Amino acid sequence: MNDSYLNFVNSPFGARLARSLGLPKPEVLRRYRADQPEFDGLIAIGAGREPHLLDALANLVTSVGMTSVAHESAGLWVPLANRHGLMTGRFEPAESGSHGKLSALLFDASGIEDSSQLEPVHGFFHDTLRSLGKCGRIIVLGRPPEACATPRQWTAQRALEGLTRSLGKEARRGITANLVYVEQGAEDGIEATLRFFLSPRSAYVSGQVVRIGVRAGADALPAFDWNQPLAGRRAMVTGAARGIGASIASVLAAEGAHVIGIDIPSARDALDSTMRQLNGTALAFDIAAPEAPAQIAAALDEQGVDIVVHNAGITKDKTIAKMTDAAWQSVIDINLSAQERIDDALLAAGILRDGGRIIGVSSISGIAGNLGQTNYAASKAGVIGRVQSMAPHLRGRGITINAVAPGFIETQMTAKIPLTIREAGRRMNSMSQGGQPVDVAQTIAWLAHPGSAGVSGQIVRVCGQSLIGA
Amino acid sequence: MNDSYLNFVNSPFGARLARSLGLPKPEVLRRYRADQPEFDGLIAIGAGREPHLLDALANLVTSVGMTSVAHESAGLWVPLANRHGLMTGRFEPAESGSHGKLSALLFDASGIEDSSQLEPVHGFFHDTLRSLGKCGRIIVLGRPPEACATPRQWTAQRALEGLTRSLGKEARRGITANLVYVEQGAEDGIEATLRFFLSPRSAYVSGQVVRIGVRAGADALPAFDWNQPLAGRRAMVTGAARGIGASIASVLAAEGAHVIGIDIPSARDALDSTMRQLNGTALAFDIAAPEAPAQIAAALDEQGVDIVVHNAGITKDKTIAKMTDAAWQSVIDINLSAQERIDDALLAAGILRDGGRIIGVSSISGIAGNLGQTNYAASKAGVIGRVQSMAPHLRGRGITINAVAPGFIETQMTAKIPLTIREAGRRMNSMSQGGQPVDVAQTIAWLAHPGSAGVSGQIVRVCGQSLIGA
Repeated sequence: MNDSYLNFVNSPFGARLARSLGLPKPEVLRRYRADQPEFDGLIAIGAGREPHLLDALANLVTSVGMTSVAHESAGLWVPLANRHGLMTGRFEPAESGSHGKLSALLFDASGIEDSSQLEPVHGFFHDTLRSLGKCGRIIVLGRPPEACATPRQWTAQRALEGLTRSLGKEARRGITANLVYVEQGAEDGIEATLRFFLSPRSAYVSGQVVRIGVRAGADALPAFDWNQPLAGRRAMVTGAARGIGASIASVLAAEGAHVIGIDIPSARDALDSTMRQLNGTALAFDIAAPEAPAQIAAALDEQGVDIVVHNAGITKDKTIAKMTDAAWQSVIDINLSAQERIDDALLAAGILRDGGRIIGVSSISGIAGNLGQTNYAASKAGVIGRVQSMAPHLRGRGITINAVAPGFIETQMTAKIPLTIREAGRRMNSMSQGGQPVDVAQTIAWLAHPGSAGVSGQIVRVCGQSLIGA
Repeated sequence: MNDSYLNFVNSPFGARLARSLGLPKPEVLRRYRADQPEFDGLIAIGAGREPHLLDALANLVTSVGMTSVAHESAGLWVPLANRHGLMTGRFEPAESGSHGKLSALLFDASGIEDSSQLEPVHGFFHDTLRSLGKCGRIIVLGRPPEACATPRQWTAQRALEGLTRSLGKEARRGITANLVYVEQGAEDGIEATLRFFLSPRSAYVSGQVVRIGVRAGADALPAFDWNQPLAGRRAMVTGAARGIGASIASVLAAEGAHVIGIDIPSARDALDSTMRQLNGTALAFDIAAPEAPAQIAAALDEQGVDIVVHNAGITKDKTIAKMTDAAWQSVIDINLSAQERIDDALLAAGILRDGGRIIGVSSISGIAGNLGQTNYAASKAGVIGRVQSMAPHLRGRGITINAVAPGFIETQMTAKIPLTIREAGRRMNSMSQGGQPVDVAQTIAWLAHPGSAGVSGQIVRVCGQSLIGA
């Protein structure tokens, strides 16, 4: 729960000592606080040939109230920004003194149709990266490769992934780098996602590739208030008594949702206390019990539910030769099969309302496998399959399904890991530190957002761009 | 080029010292040698409910001349094996003494349709893993999730990925673990792929997921000899003068291909010497020159070509703020754009014959990004896009396109990496060592094989299951 190295090297004495010894100095990440401005500072805009997203970006920059500067690659930005009444200027190449002046770098690569047209991406980051401040944001925008008209375009758009991930690894200083592919026709659906990646809410999300698709039926987004986007919505969270689940419940409640927290009967006191603080509803059920889906459906029936977060999960680690049948079965059942049964019950009865959200919790282990976790990794890989298989089925009802995949998150569970393994897990990522439960919770809140209607079938890692992968 | 730690801990004195100090002891990997049997030992067969692939597996086991034992989960195997005239018995659960008796574990999970049916996978590996010998093979067989009829089936099949990758991480001792998804109807096309994963040829390929699809037009495979599968075929290899390229040329020639090696004019002597040894043809061209595609097409025109391996590539590493325009452009151009131009020329003129093979070389950097390699990673991510985008286009002509993605391979290039970084790169994988150029070459030979007609659009890492990933 407590990264004492991070605290030490960010103290005056520790910082001096770390500097003189050449030790890594993880940045104290800037995280969202209700009493601090969510968006501020200067945003630099770059673009490749024939960018398609500048209009949508101008709307975004206007909406969040930031100031922009145009890199020479984005000649169209200045007149466009002027039309939007935006404060804007031209980016001056990095001289001594400009270091740290920028808070975000946005590059619109959507018009790039051939690998020979990639040079402006280099030019933009070459010129601007040194001017990006601590905990700054890098966002590259492109078109989903698999939807491109020609193999050449697909190839060039796919190349952006290697670039963005490399930028995340070299930027350091708490800077995140993410790639957002915007489907043609989905330009008006990018704001919730870009707000998330620009905001301190995404402090521990880096090296990710997210696709924004056209919403089902091209419906208008429902009306909502950016300050309370979940107002009037009901969110069910399993495993909500403590830890990451309690943090998810708390963030969703802060965004305006009424939270229905579920946890096992033995955690009833903690669950009651957590839900009381959030004016939520506590339901003590064992989600793995055969009768649980019907019980949950009955408890939610009258008012329905808009957001379902499958957070409950267990580990029973052993190498497979020592893993009992019971240890295998219970992990698969609680982490995977129970979710399938509950979703199916809520969907069949229409209790999860149209336009709803299902959010699963996978894991780096589910992506890369892990020693001693054949059961856990299988269950968490299954969560990925669940998300990918259900997304097209749910599209007609406007329901999205996604999962987060946490990396090393500082919890009571990770606090029990032996010191050397814990230290390796903490440092082996672009942030050189573990994440916090709130980082997972904020990512879930973005996926639960009414403005995220075009985001479905996706797995987003909350791992600080962990080195570990498949 | 030389892993002195690996050599030391496998010497009599070094092994004693490593044991007493608790140091890791990387296994000396068994690699293919023409003077040693490629397939031998005992193979254990397991299965989930209603396995669909046992017939194809019985053909395989018969063809390679191995002996099998049936785990209790595979009750159907014994009568089936008897019908095939196979030597077979029943697997006896691991007792002291059975350690190391098995050379491969094969599990047919193709009939599993729900996460609640996964238990036999655990039961099989629980019982058998301790009996698997050094450099043994684990192969899990399933159905491609995205082709499954129901979300439940997709989810259960997808769960196998987490299991297989975890097995690879815990098995150690030079053991590989891979997952092969066989599309319905492609059962008769599995032999070349399963031979590769069973063979010492795949020594450094672990943690991979490969899909075998139905061949275009469901054509019969062309006739070939398993000992000289590339006899009568012409294979073009770029960057063939030295290193990995020379190793690729050598393996393809050993499989019977006539190799046309291409390299830059300044490497002409090395190229000539390499090609002379292989009875190949040397072509000194700069592949990045504008006239190269036409020159190559003209040189190959008369007899055409069956296999194109895009191995040539360069690095020019710098953080992006220090990377010149020229360093960006030349890496993108040589590693990516030149391949596009050459393929397009060979395809347009029909010089690459129907039923041919295109094989690109991507990289772990192209998947995960890398510090100081924005240009290289973009080019290698682009290679992935090239493979994925071209595969459907080429299907009608029976041409497959795939790429290998090497991890840490011992070459002159990696020998120049500073010691501590080199050691980290070597050890951070399930084999605790770097791979050899021949490991990349053998993987390419499998993809070039006439029996690999159902394998297309895929990226196969040759990385010993590197920890590093996206």
